[in-house]
Amino acid sequence: MQDVLDETHDPTARSWVDSANDSATDFPIQNLPFGTFRRRGHDEPRLGVAIGDRVLDVYACIDGPRSVSELLAAPAEARAAVRLTLHRVLRQDANEGMRQFIAPHLLDFGSVDLLMPTRIGDYADVFGSIHHARNAAALMRPGAAFFPNYAHVPLAYHGRSSTIVESGRDVRRPRGQQRRRGAEGSDATVVYEPTRRLDYEAELGLFIGPGTTPGEPVGIDDAWNHVAGVCLLNDWSARDIQAWESDPLGPFMGKSFATTISPWIVTAEALAPFRVAAVEREGDLPPLLRYLDSADDRQRGALQIEVDVLLATAAMRREGAAPHLLTRTNAAGQFWTPAQVVAHITSNGSPLRPGDLIGSGTLSGVERSSWSCLLELTRGGREPITLPNGEQRGFLEDGDEVILRGRCVAPGARTIGFGDCRGRVVPA
Amino acid sequence: MQDVLDETHDPTARSWVDSANDSATDFPIQNLPFGTFRRRGHDEPRLGVAIGDRVLDVYACIDGPRSVSELLAAPAEARAAVRLTLHRVLRQDANEGMRQFIAPHLLDFGSVDLLMPTRIGDYADVFGSIHHARNAAALMRPGAAFFPNYAHVPLAYHGRSSTIVESGRDVRRPRGQQRRRGAEGSDATVVYEPTRRLDYEAELGLFIGPGTTPGEPVGIDDAWNHVAGVCLLNDWSARDIQAWESDPLGPFMGKSFATTISPWIVTAEALAPFRVAAVEREGDLPPLLRYLDSADDRQRGALQIEVDVLLATAAMRREGAAPHLLTRTNAAGQFWTPAQVVAHITSNGSPLRPGDLIGSGTLSGVERSSWSCLLELTRGGREPITLPNGEQRGFLEDGDEVILRGRCVAPGARTIGFGDCRGRVVPA
Repeated sequence: MQDVLDETHDPTARSWVDSANDSATDFPIQNLPFGTFRRRGHDEPRLGVAIGDRVLDVYACIDGPRSVSELLAAPAEARAAVRLTLHRVLRQDANEGMRQFIAPHLLDFGSVDLLMPTRIGDYADVFGSIHHARNAAALMRPGAAFFPNYAHVPLAYHGRSSTIVESGRDVRRPRGQQRRRGAEGSDATVVYEPTRRLDYEAELGLFIGPGTTPGEPVGIDDAWNHVAGVCLLNDWSARDIQAWESDPLGPFMGKSFATTISPWIVTAEALAPFRVAAVEREGDLPPLLRYLDSADDRQRGALQIEVDVLLATAAMRREGAAPHLLTRTNAAGQFWTPAQVVAHITSNGSPLRPGDLIGSGTLSGVERSSWSCLLELTRGGREPITLPNGEQRGFLEDGDEVILRGRCVAPGARTIGFGDCRGRVVPA
Repeated sequence: MQDVLDETHDPTARSWVDSANDSATDFPIQNLPFGTFRRRGHDEPRLGVAIGDRVLDVYACIDGPRSVSELLAAPAEARAAVRLTLHRVLRQDANEGMRQFIAPHLLDFGSVDLLMPTRIGDYADVFGSIHHARNAAALMRPGAAFFPNYAHVPLAYHGRSSTIVESGRDVRRPRGQQRRRGAEGSDATVVYEPTRRLDYEAELGLFIGPGTTPGEPVGIDDAWNHVAGVCLLNDWSARDIQAWESDPLGPFMGKSFATTISPWIVTAEALAPFRVAAVEREGDLPPLLRYLDSADDRQRGALQIEVDVLLATAAMRREGAAPHLLTRTNAAGQFWTPAQVVAHITSNGSPLRPGDLIGSGTLSGVERSSWSCLLELTRGGREPITLPNGEQRGFLEDGDEVILRGRCVAPGARTIGFGDCRGRVVPA
């Protein structure tokens, strides 16, 4: 990640693509996130960059990477150079000849399909919020002490990369083994049935860019050199399947059925203005081991990213109601920073490869309004929430659509966003 | 997997490649496992098949797949057809013209490097042996009840595909977070240091061949259509790192530093004569849910594969001593069959993709002589084993080489093997 802001971050810069100057757009000229698109009726996936309500066909216009996977593998400097070039050709002061050259390669969002940005390599998901961890522990193990390892080690598990899908794909309610409590006086039974406790988890996804050398842990101050960018991520979870299977090997089938990501990779460069101080460790927490500690990471290792979770039920869509805001949280409140996570995941010598993805973990903060999954919001389904139209939800029902939206906001910076991360539940 | 044995399984068949007729070879003409090799001094990885002490450059000789990844993606019938062709051109009765055509493409093992057969997609590892699970539970949670979910659900976790390496690669002792007991009267401390409890786990690896459709669980009787073949697998484990991190999300950094596999994929076709009845479930175990139960799987769902674990220390190599046999076990004793595992992993709709790998879990049987990791053999390091030269081992030391060897033996069938799965521990 660049240390110094440059002309690509100038909050006053405007684009000759008018929609990029709309104050509500996720994609002003200060953002320039990368993705993979296909023109309707064409076969070939192409590298694109979002600008306002358009996608620029990058490879058709400028020399450089031909695909997101090539872009991810390139050094940060090369990625930043592509960004600078795109910024200049799209900026309002680009000359008329350049505009005429570029314009034919700008496609309406409506004329393309956004695909998975790249094939994901290894996918790991971190237990990154101590508030989520405490809430989950209280629900899962009432009365027990909080995890003694939590404040020492960024806990995580590997997930299934084959079921990571792009925003907009339906999510089929999974079947799976569950232990069902019997009626009073009868025994619990184990069944293989559709989950009754389907949940979302609002997270960020970190895309790994340049790979690391096997056997060589990444120092915490080098970690951002290996993060290419960030997306929004919904770690769909089946709580009943997860609860039954998780001891002792952790979550498996309760998570592996689907993970939805937003289509654009908002680059580490674009995020530079939104790095803020990490959450201070409270007095009674253990000191950090050295491989997880750096003055620079304390000072600006967190990401100031607001994330909203919205729900639209089938009834709400029929009624023409807008999606209902369930949660507003901020990734800056995470207990573990992205650099700590990268340092930890490579601390045993495991290499990272371009296209690996790391989930931040559920982004819950202290306040109830920031709790980022239904497990927490409804206290395990026992206290259903009531939607504006009177519907209640303990967990997700068929037809429910979950939408994540993200925004980076900072004084003196142009606000940038991610595009929606959405998925609709379809019956088992 | 083929239901009926055919001419490729004829135990009396011999090859015009003399070394394939040696009774001690892993690679008689009845085996024909696939792998990826590179001729020394050449760049290009090639699809090969092992025959005696030679590798045949498959693509140079016969029409069909150009790589292991193409072979894995092909339907079982296509894979079987390649096998049949190879069997016929290598059989003793092949005509002289054919032999002269094939012979230049047979390379000495000594002239090639064996590489990873293919890039691994998703990697999951199953807790497949109830004996291993019981031993591990007794050591990890003395006095506690055995996992109540074990006999219901094939427990598993996802691992890191980027650190799966081919036989022969050194394994660097990983560093990691551990909770170290203090001297008497002093507190435990958490440190980031090289593991002191480095272990192996002897397993099989199942290579997924033809992929499955997202959202469609694979029926247990269809499962073998998606298994292309089997290798040996060493799931290296750092027990101190694993113990500290595993609650509640399961093993992560204690496993993700290295997994070694043998270089050849012994095909489902080659394994047909070695399918045997699954272990009968003891009287007090719960009945199987229907998606994990089939008469055919009970009758011949297990694999009769003997696996040996050998250890050679640096001192033993200096002394010219042969590797010492630590363990002999048999995969037929696994609690969960390959088909049950495939049915379970897809039971929530997760697809399998060609090149996915599934570890069987540690292959420990009932008897101590079959326990397949040091954790069990040394009871958590408390009862070190003594090697023939007087050295003792609680866990692995630098310079130790662990070698897995596998053999399929059945009445009326030619014995086939896997080639060594070996790795040597180098200092942190």
